[in-house]
Amino acid sequence: MSSHSGYRGKSLAFLEKHNLEVGNLVKVETDSAYSGILMPRYEYSDDKHIVLKLKSGYNIGVEIDKIKKIELESSETIKKENMPQPRVDPSLPKILLVSTGGTIASKIDYRTGGVTPALTAAELNATVPELAKIANVDTEVLFSEYSENLLPEHWKKIAEKINSHVKSEYKGIIIAHGTDTMQYTAAALSFSLAGIPIPIALVGSQRSSDRPSSDAALNLIAAARFLVESNTSGIYVVMHNNQSDDEVACHWATRVRKNHTSKRNAFQTIGGDPAFIVKREKIEKNPQFNHIQKDYMPKINFDTRVALVKYYPGLDPKIMEHIISAGYKAIIFEGTGLGHVGKILYEYVGKAKKKGLFLGMTSQCIDGMVRMTVYESGRDLLNLGIIPLGNIIPETALVKAMWALGTSKSIDEMEKTMKDNVAMEFSD
Amino acid sequence: MSSHSGYRGKSLAFLEKHNLEVGNLVKVETDSAYSGILMPRYEYSDDKHIVLKLKSGYNIGVEIDKIKKIELESSETIKKENMPQPRVDPSLPKILLVSTGGTIASKIDYRTGGVTPALTAAELNATVPELAKIANVDTEVLFSEYSENLLPEHWKKIAEKINSHVKSEYKGIIIAHGTDTMQYTAAALSFSLAGIPIPIALVGSQRSSDRPSSDAALNLIAAARFLVESNTSGIYVVMHNNQSDDEVACHWATRVRKNHTSKRNAFQTIGGDPAFIVKREKIEKNPQFNHIQKDYMPKINFDTRVALVKYYPGLDPKIMEHIISAGYKAIIFEGTGLGHVGKILYEYVGKAKKKGLFLGMTSQCIDGMVRMTVYESGRDLLNLGIIPLGNIIPETALVKAMWALGTSKSIDEMEKTMKDNVAMEFSD
Repeated sequence: MSSHSGYRGKSLAFLEKHNLEVGNLVKVETDSAYSGILMPRYEYSDDKHIVLKLKSGYNIGVEIDKIKKIELESSETIKKENMPQPRVDPSLPKILLVSTGGTIASKIDYRTGGVTPALTAAELNATVPELAKIANVDTEVLFSEYSENLLPEHWKKIAEKINSHVKSEYKGIIIAHGTDTMQYTAAALSFSLAGIPIPIALVGSQRSSDRPSSDAALNLIAAARFLVESNTSGIYVVMHNNQSDDEVACHWATRVRKNHTSKRNAFQTIGGDPAFIVKREKIEKNPQFNHIQKDYMPKINFDTRVALVKYYPGLDPKIMEHIISAGYKAIIFEGTGLGHVGKILYEYVGKAKKKGLFLGMTSQCIDGMVRMTVYESGRDLLNLGIIPLGNIIPETALVKAMWALGTSKSIDEMEKTMKDNVAMEFSD
Repeated sequence: MSSHSGYRGKSLAFLEKHNLEVGNLVKVETDSAYSGILMPRYEYSDDKHIVLKLKSGYNIGVEIDKIKKIELESSETIKKENMPQPRVDPSLPKILLVSTGGTIASKIDYRTGGVTPALTAAELNATVPELAKIANVDTEVLFSEYSENLLPEHWKKIAEKINSHVKSEYKGIIIAHGTDTMQYTAAALSFSLAGIPIPIALVGSQRSSDRPSSDAALNLIAAARFLVESNTSGIYVVMHNNQSDDEVACHWATRVRKNHTSKRNAFQTIGGDPAFIVKREKIEKNPQFNHIQKDYMPKINFDTRVALVKYYPGLDPKIMEHIISAGYKAIIFEGTGLGHVGKILYEYVGKAKKKGLFLGMTSQCIDGMVRMTVYESGRDLLNLGIIPLGNIIPETALVKAMWALGTSKSIDEMEKTMKDNVAMEFSD
């Protein structure tokens, strides 16, 4: 491990000038005074800040140009076991934090300077001491995977884990999850656990907890408050609502999409506002809040024989032949506009229908209703047997199709399920 | 043709009560007085309005509850040849309007009640008499196709048509185009005609000109003003900027996306503001306006052997084997987050690279930069030979790859082109 891991340019020169290394306990004076452990930085970080982990567990970035004085308090690295442990308050409700990996559960890799998913749920809990004031948080590590590596078999395990705790003492469950495929897992849980009587919050962070701008703590605290205070049930994605640190949004898990690669408020509810906004002083419920009343009868299975076909000019229609011959049972189209594909595909759509595949239409516009009766093209496709899927977002439609296929006895039964509003996937 | 084509419920009862038929010339009194032809409506229209085509050429919707008096002025349908012809003013600049089809060039089909792309460019021009006050507009019909049926061979014909007029008397060219695949055509023209010295405006409408809320006239008028007044060059998509009738946006044609199935302001610039806003009183240029200076050397060719792979949990990695064996030369990935695909695909990514395919990474988040050095997964994929494609939007990346493949002598040359900022496709 380099003694200046991740630092470069001005910030590296600054540390060398003051004879400081990553891991040192230092005292810093700017307009305020701080004491904390000098943390490593990432290879893509700017060179204008140093990062300190304060005794509170928080990381802060300090601009080196504003530092009036810096000195060594101890050259020993503070070990994990010295971190403050959360206290237990028997008057508080209990929640469970299940970690699956991702940035929220990641820490810097001292060897490569990169980020790896390795922090345990217990460490995560200890890193955010505010959690202990909201609830008694039990923690459990289910996986340590970046979410791009999670598969439908992982969805199943997460759903089974949640289901095993539904009748327990927990008021709600936090699922710490990578943001890359969080919306897919969120949709999978929404369908397989439809009607669940407790609230579940999928929480991620866009910046890891070692970074000064990390959203990990804020999102976790908001999720815990949401579970304890909101008096609701169902599956939600709980992530930053804006660029400031004011608001965290609780999105309906079937209507949420990651719409930016790096912003902390990357997650957005499509075609409406989030279900709840967690503010400093209160939790605001969407006045249009809607809830599908259902008995809780978990159906936890997924069948991946569903193909996603995004239509674009130049798409080789033979891809449809591959899909038919490879044994797929369903196709979700990401059509253009109100739900169209080019005439060039019609013959193959007809063939797929004859083979008994379920054919569902969504729009690559992402927002807005599919309406297939407006234009000739849409009516032609309806006649060929394509089912319009309202304003469901394409990724949710895909997950729903895997779930409906995995839990239906026939394609007819699957089609019926695809048309039902199971978990707020149709918002109009 | 039904005498009440498209009318139903309250509005049908209203017409029957007053003995009126579609095609009648009627006088209507509300708070104002109108005289116009009673137009047919669509099968999905509401039943609260009737639609009149005024002598000015505009259609308006009149709420039947607000009608104080309605009477027949003439029972004869006004024929097209009686419509006012635009006058020619030799002091005005000349522009060309090329029609390719789509809603903007569509009219109601009196037989089915649906919308078909059939209006000629000349009719379009005559329908919007304001155009004649801005420029002398020559018109030409290139195709009459819904844009979901346009293919890269059509892109080529549109580009060649524009190129044949670059050195002519036209100050600019309007391409009337369906909105379904407008962004694909716009990107194709941006790359193949990079450096074009005149402005080109792709214009569509989300509601056909027979509908009371049609955006066809506003968009066309704004496009004509933009071509004549803006003193710029390059390819732009010119569409409604908000829900009101105040503003029309001119989007950089490589950074625009249709983000709603039906709203009039469905088109949005991704990761920034539009290049220009056409307001009633003036045309505002984006203060961050940027322009890539290039000599005009049109390269008009597209090779469709490019596959789009959108990664999602459960994607069968064998799709990659199909792509390799089917003879594709390039893959554009729509990865997750900062530009990832699951480990399950790594082996096949390696195989595709060995076979010499170009592999480019974009993000299904749509907005934001691809950054593949932050996480282990990204670095693994870089090592496997995937090229990160900045903040290009996935659909534009796909079109660019078809163009780069069609105009390069080798995959190495293609790769070089893919990394170049040819037409503002990278905005950061």
